[in-house]
Amino acid sequence: MKYGIAIFPEKKIQDIANSYRKRYDPHYALIPPHITLKEPFEFDESRLQDATQHLELVSRETAPFETLLHKVSTFHPTTNVLYLAVQENESILTLHEQVNSGELFHERSYQFIPHITIGQKLPADEIHDIYGRLRMVNVKLTIRVDRFHLLYQLENGSWTIYQTFLLRG
Amino acid sequence: MKYGIAIFPEKKIQDIANSYRKRYDPHYALIPPHITLKEPFEFDESRLQDATQHLELVSRETAPFETLLHKVSTFHPTTNVLYLAVQENESILTLHEQVNSGELFHERSYQFIPHITIGQKLPADEIHDIYGRLRMVNVKLTIRVDRFHLLYQLENGSWTIYQTFLLRG
Repeated sequence: MKYGIAIFPEKKIQDIANSYRKRYDPHYALIPPHITLKEPFEFDESRLQDATQHLELVSRETAPFETLLHKVSTFHPTTNVLYLAVQENESILTLHEQVNSGELFHERSYQFIPHITIGQKLPADEIHDIYGRLRMVNVKLTIRVDRFHLLYQLENGSWTIYQTFLLRG
Repeated sequence: MKYGIAIFPEKKIQDIANSYRKRYDPHYALIPPHITLKEPFEFDESRLQDATQHLELVSRETAPFETLLHKVSTFHPTTNVLYLAVQENESILTLHEQVNSGELFHERSYQFIPHITIGQKLPADEIHDIYGRLRMVNVKLTIRVDRFHLLYQLENGSWTIYQTFLLRG
């Protein structure tokens, strides 16, 4: 089964992200706006308890923290993704490292850049135009991170929550 | 803010429900297939901790249980809803009662009938046709209920998970 781990920001920020996603993100209906903490990965359902125990441990040892969305950015030309960028933040990098360890360790081929996707799979010329406009938007949104969620993907591509993990370190 | 409480059945059952919802349910993209444990309700965000403490208590005192989806049914003519019906089951009625108590008590104007919606807002003649076909389908799906989730609604009508509560009574 395919699993993923994500942080959902508070409603206000999700509503802002959705105002862009509605137009620019074909995954708009598959999952609410989120920061991916661990990219989708295959995991054997029969070993799910090992995964949740690992995440339980991580959440128990991690204190809630705040992080700032500080600009609109893009991964273009690597991928045609537009996103709200999370300002450099040790806490979220550490949380990512700890989640991606033990039972859930996977080699990664790229750097972890925490973000909320607001556009993707856009034609190259469109992304240029849109980014040109959105990079001027003044973004300053604080996210309080006090939980993360383990999700699994359905056959139609949408995601269901399996479990919440509250940060209580 | 608008909150709701729901049970998500296992992936296999969600995929089956979605195969119908895709065609018959305009809420298909707003939330994964679910059993509503408490209908959407307004609740002051500032009192959210009271709500989660209440649900934490309920989940701690409730043992996991199994329940059976045993047929396709409809609320027509009351509302044009098609659903997978949960066979009479004391555990889920009790869980509903306990969730809907204390901090989260609301008067209800109708009986709680646990179900998974697979179609809604259908024209009356269509629902007749579709129900005529689907009532012949042999449904026998066991759901293991070992958790429920508190959700909140975004401005676009979609739902985000706030927290999972594991049944561990």
